[in-house]
Amino acid sequence: MPTILGQNQYGKAENRVVRITRDGDTHHIKDLNVSVALSGDMADVHYSGSNANVLPTDTTKNTVFAFAKKYGIESAEQFGIHLARHFVSSQEPIQIARIRIEEYSWERIETSGGNSRFIGADEVKHSFVRKGQETRTAQITYDGEKWEVISGLKELSVLNSTNSEFWGYVKDEYTTLKEAHDRVLATDVSAKWRYNWTSDEARMPNWEKSYEQARKHMLEAFAETYSLSLQQTLYQMGSRIINSRSEIDEIRFSLPNNHHFLVDLEPFGLKNDTADGAVYFAADRPYGLIEATVLRDGIEPRIPVDLTNL
Amino acid sequence: MPTILGQNQYGKAENRVVRITRDGDTHHIKDLNVSVALSGDMADVHYSGSNANVLPTDTTKNTVFAFAKKYGIESAEQFGIHLARHFVSSQEPIQIARIRIEEYSWERIETSGGNSRFIGADEVKHSFVRKGQETRTAQITYDGEKWEVISGLKELSVLNSTNSEFWGYVKDEYTTLKEAHDRVLATDVSAKWRYNWTSDEARMPNWEKSYEQARKHMLEAFAETYSLSLQQTLYQMGSRIINSRSEIDEIRFSLPNNHHFLVDLEPFGLKNDTADGAVYFAADRPYGLIEATVLRDGIEPRIPVDLTNL
Amino acid sequence: MPTILGQNQYGKAENRVVRITRDGDTHHIKDLNVSVALSGDMADVHYSGSNANVLPTDTTKNTVFAFAKKYGIESAEQFGIHLARHFVSSQEPIQIARIRIEEYSWERIETSGGNSRFIGADEVKHSFVRKGQETRTAQITYDGEKWEVISGLKELSVLNSTNSEFWGYVKDEYTTLKEAHDRVLATDVSAKWRYNWTSDEARMPNWEKSYEQARKHMLEAFAETYSLSLQQTLYQMGSRIINSRSEIDEIRFSLPNNHHFLVDLEPFGLKNDTADGAVYFAADRPYGLIEATVLRDGIEPRIPVDLTNL
Amino acid sequence: MPTILGQNQYGKAENRVVRITRDGDTHHIKDLNVSVALSGDMADVHYSGSNANVLPTDTTKNTVFAFAKKYGIESAEQFGIHLARHFVSSQEPIQIARIRIEEYSWERIETSGGNSRFIGADEVKHSFVRKGQETRTAQITYDGEKWEVISGLKELSVLNSTNSEFWGYVKDEYTTLKEAHDRVLATDVSAKWRYNWTSDEARMPNWEKSYEQARKHMLEAFAETYSLSLQQTLYQMGSRIINSRSEIDEIRFSLPNNHHFLVDLEPFGLKNDTADGAVYFAADRPYGLIEATVLRDGIEPRIPVDLTNL
Repeated sequence: MPTILGQNQYGKAENRVVRITRDGDTHHIKDLNVSVALSGDMADVHYSGSNANVLPTDTTKNTVFAFAKKYGIESAEQFGIHLARHFVSSQEPIQIARIRIEEYSWERIETSGGNSRFIGADEVKHSFVRKGQETRTAQITYDGEKWEVISGLKELSVLNSTNSEFWGYVKDEYTTLKEAHDRVLATDVSAKWRYNWTSDEARMPNWEKSYEQARKHMLEAFAETYSLSLQQTLYQMGSRIINSRSEIDEIRFSLPNNHHFLVDLEPFGLKNDTADGAVYFAADRPYGLIEATVLRDGIEPRIPVDLTNL
Repeated sequence: MPTILGQNQYGKAENRVVRITRDGDTHHIKDLNVSVALSGDMADVHYSGSNANVLPTDTTKNTVFAFAKKYGIESAEQFGIHLARHFVSSQEPIQIARIRIEEYSWERIETSGGNSRFIGADEVKHSFVRKGQETRTAQITYDGEKWEVISGLKELSVLNSTNSEFWGYVKDEYTTLKEAHDRVLATDVSAKWRYNWTSDEARMPNWEKSYEQARKHMLEAFAETYSLSLQQTLYQMGSRIINSRSEIDEIRFSLPNNHHFLVDLEPFGLKNDTADGAVYFAADRPYGLIEATVLRDGIEPRIPVDLTNL
Repeated sequence: MPTILGQNQYGKAENRVVRITRDGDTHHIKDLNVSVALSGDMADVHYSGSNANVLPTDTTKNTVFAFAKKYGIESAEQFGIHLARHFVSSQEPIQIARIRIEEYSWERIETSGGNSRFIGADEVKHSFVRKGQETRTAQITYDGEKWEVISGLKELSVLNSTNSEFWGYVKDEYTTLKEAHDRVLATDVSAKWRYNWTSDEARMPNWEKSYEQARKHMLEAFAETYSLSLQQTLYQMGSRIINSRSEIDEIRFSLPNNHHFLVDLEPFGLKNDTADGAVYFAADRPYGLIEATVLRDGIEPRIPVDLTNL
Repeated sequence: MPTILGQNQYGKAENRVVRITRDGDTHHIKDLNVSVALSGDMADVHYSGSNANVLPTDTTKNTVFAFAKKYGIESAEQFGIHLARHFVSSQEPIQIARIRIEEYSWERIETSGGNSRFIGADEVKHSFVRKGQETRTAQITYDGEKWEVISGLKELSVLNSTNSEFWGYVKDEYTTLKEAHDRVLATDVSAKWRYNWTSDEARMPNWEKSYEQARKHMLEAFAETYSLSLQQTLYQMGSRIINSRSEIDEIRFSLPNNHHFLVDLEPFGLKNDTADGAVYFAADRPYGLIEATVLRDGIEPRIPVDLTNL
């Protein structure tokens, strides 16, 4: 047979698991979307259809829900570590387990004291509104010896209404763009950062705090950078995280340039200058797309190369 | 000719307009998606293709952007009023103008003082992160004499992790559902409320404050209602708004019942009770869908009947 | 209590039901997404949470699947008629049932005779590829006496690369559009047509044939009309259906004008004329939106007015 | 500075370009969505914001539209080759260009001869309906010396209603799945195949024919394989393409297992067996996800490893 099997993986994707814990009347919620991918000694099932080495994807789904009960969900990363360890250590043919998780955040509904017929406002500690903004992501990979944890976020929309310029670029025969000295800079942040923790389970990072701090540094760097190009802003966002968080060695961004074009209102006798209530058209497509990795110096990059695809 | 033209309307949909105003270093942003629909004496263009009565949709787009500059965007409702008045009063053949608007909210990025090379954190008053959560909506209709303003929101996801029951319902030969005495109640709120203001431009409601208060009452009623059915919760949400806001006479809700099923973990020797870290499967489809209007007593309903479509 | 309940309905939405029948080795597939909405004597559940009149949405889901087995799925419309009749006739408090259905089409995979190790190509009569193109829709409403059936389709993308003009329109101070004498006309057809059948079950239309013919006439009218405006094309599409199909009295269209802008290539020394390989930018937003009803003369319109929402 | 720039790329994404050519009255249409990504000597713009090496993304957009006019669009692959060659050869700092393209297919509207007032049916050769089904994809990469062309498709939904089993798998403590001996097998095919052509422009594959044949072999292998697991079907699809098309060396699939669960109708006294009109619930999430590469024996794999991300 002139063809052979190459790299492969399988599992159950997008298991939507919600866990609610009660601390007296105060409830807590964890809301995850968990995908399992397993790889190992799987040639037979591809060549002949023998499932002798195949743990059904349905079983991996059951395991996700059972583990949410057994171990709880301390963080997306910790939950993924429990799952990946289980699949690799319990099934001989499975050599690598990769768990991908999306996490949705909820915040409490604030009540001011109510006229409900049933309960008073100060009793309400079980009511939540979804936070919106970014989706948190985590990818945990385990090969039986080492761990790789890549956390991140996506769909975090940010905008600077000034302190952004773009000029001094290459001009060729297809260039018509005018230089800009005060433009809107807007993007939807997709970021993936890799932790340098790989093995000692007693010395894991504090995943929740690390996420919160990475997000904070990223937003602050976006806000505080006077930008001459989106590439420069990207690099500032990445380097600030790595400089501030010793547990993170590498970060990749995929940043669409969400164009806000100053509308030409001169045909209507209106001057649309930025100083006085400028009006922009927020365009959909096409959009610039700026992608790059920022690394701690001396570190080998490991996040997959093509960020468009992450 | 055995066929005739019935109701009709046309215009430019989804004009994405962003306006940024500067108050010294402090910037403000309004971010809208504006759709224009015009109707009137338009039989000829349908029957013969004569465009003599047709203001091009391209012109209605230009008008949206020009008016954002000329009049600013005080609120989505006020902006829609300027537009609707213009189309009806300036074009003889146009008898009714309907402006539909979606509004996206932004909040300031908080910075803690930075290590930027360029600017200090306390100067940053032009950086925003999109708020996520609900999309605000407004629909303004004008026929040359009276106004109808219907405001609302959509995609506001809320969840109560207790204080919800469902039992005592009809059982027929196709009923298998077990009664629930402590369930999760979750929904994505879509709501449309109608203002009783119709004509006196000097006595318009304060649209911004009214929106904020309607949203607050809705969330509080959701949180504070001990629920025996989603219908009951819906009615509490609606009646609290009408009782609290004299400017609102009618409100319609479309509430999917976002099912959270307690996972059966008994096959794995685990008891999945609500008291101790219950684990739920958050299902996609099918979902219950509960829709109703709540009205001030004595008022004629005017919001279109089929809320699924709003 | 100063508020009252207005119009309301409830049920299970988006039940994804697939039925496969076998005629020897030849299989047939019906693939539907069925939503149930019931209304009637439901005040108590809204006011007090009493579910005494409430058939659970879970039961309506079970009924959909059970009826797919019991009655089969001859057509979306016939299936909806079985369901609507059942809910109204079997439950005292339910006065109106409305069934909404989306149908997805599949076609057979053609095989040329194969090198499979298992089966020969001429045995393959159970393999399908989804047809893509439009989603077929049906809405069946029953109040215990009369039926209303509204069928339709959505997301059928069509394009004429010539025989479309647009000129002679109103010009006001915000008009900058240039007149066009040879433009691309493209739209995604959403249509809903109402049958005049209301009661005699022995004389139902042939739903499958009627759909197929309405679709055919619509496409042909789009292709054959020399268009001076999208409104004119719309009217031709509607009137041809009504003139050709005596069982249909009313049809509403919602037609976005999918703009294809001729790109200005003069800065690059290129003439972009339509005669010789014209290059267009296909824009997303904003878009023109043309909506209208076409009626058989003398008929009262009954399809809900605001097609944006259908 | 303790951080450094890693891999990076930039360009304009999602340029929607449509080209229409006229052959007398017969028109032809090519409808593409083109994304440009460039990489090279771009450290300065990240570190200091100097744009001296940056060709603006706006210029890459202009180039896409100008080249559609200058060179036409023979095929997505050929068009990408023109673009990639231009960017690498005309701009010193650009070392690699990657062009990604989605293509949407249109077919002619068939008319049966018409009652149009304007034109007869036999004149209609400029009217199209979008084909639906799959989106064709192409990725062209050029580094100044060698070419890599990866073509593919996505969102091609297929279903076998029999000739699929699943049994003999691993059972562990979390396994509850029952073995199946006659199940529905359904998936949405995502595939990427790599051509072994890398340099001689005079000996390029016939991209259009190659696509059509790869698609045909894939569909036939899906239909003709008696399947003991989706992995086996995947391998058959891949090996048939490589065995049939000498210009293709490697193919990766990402195949969700679109579960169709036989509904338990026993509570309603109905036996839901496959022999007689079986009724299935088509589930959304979670879903199995099967991913693998099939290679010509002796070939090094080059398609990026994680297909979930393609």
